[in-house]
Amino acid sequence: MASSRTLVDDERFRIVEWTIEPGDAIEMHTHALDYAVLPQEGAVMWAVLPDGSELEVPLVPGEAYTRAAGAAHRMENRGAERIVFTEVESKR
Amino acid sequence: MASSRTLVDDERFRIVEWTIEPGDAIEMHTHALDYAVLPQEGAVMWAVLPDGSELEVPLVPGEAYTRAAGAAHRMENRGAERIVFTEVESKR
Repeated sequence: MASSRTLVDDERFRIVEWTIEPGDAIEMHTHALDYAVLPQEGAVMWAVLPDGSELEVPLVPGEAYTRAAGAAHRMENRGAERIVFTEVESKR
Repeated sequence: MASSRTLVDDERFRIVEWTIEPGDAIEMHTHALDYAVLPQEGAVMWAVLPDGSELEVPLVPGEAYTRAAGAAHRMENRGAERIVFTEVESKR
C-alpha cells in the first residue's frame, strides 16, 4: 500500500503528498478533479489503465505535469527506490 | 529581483518555481487565480500589502498553503537564506 499525507484540503485545493515504496502501488482510482503532480523522489512510475494497458510515467524532481479529471489508473512503483510526489487537485 | 521558472502553463494550471535571494522581492502583484504555495527552501517571507501593512508568512518545506484570487502583495525576503517555492495556479 502507498501512504498519503494531506497537506491542505480546503475550498480551493486538495494537496496530498504520496509515498509509494518499491513493490507497492496506489490502487485503481478515477480522478474527479484536474490535478498536477510535483515529483520529489523517484525516476519512473507505471500506470495500469482500466483496460489493462500500461504506461511508463517519468518522474523528474523539480518538474511537474498535469492531467484532466477523468483519468483512471493504478500507479505502481516497480523500481528499487521509493517514489514521493505531491498531488495538487483543483476544486474550482 | 526574484527569478522564476515556469514548469507548466496549460489549460488547467500554471506552475512556477520562484526563487527570492536575500534582500530581493517579488514586486507588487494581484493574483488573478486561486493559488497554492509549496515551500522548498526558506523560513519566512514578508508580504507588504497595498495599504502598506505587513504580514509575516512562515514557509515550511514539505507543507503548503492556499490563497484565493484577488490577493495583492509584494513578497520580500528579509532573511539571510534564499527562498524557493513552487506556486500552483488553478485556471478552471
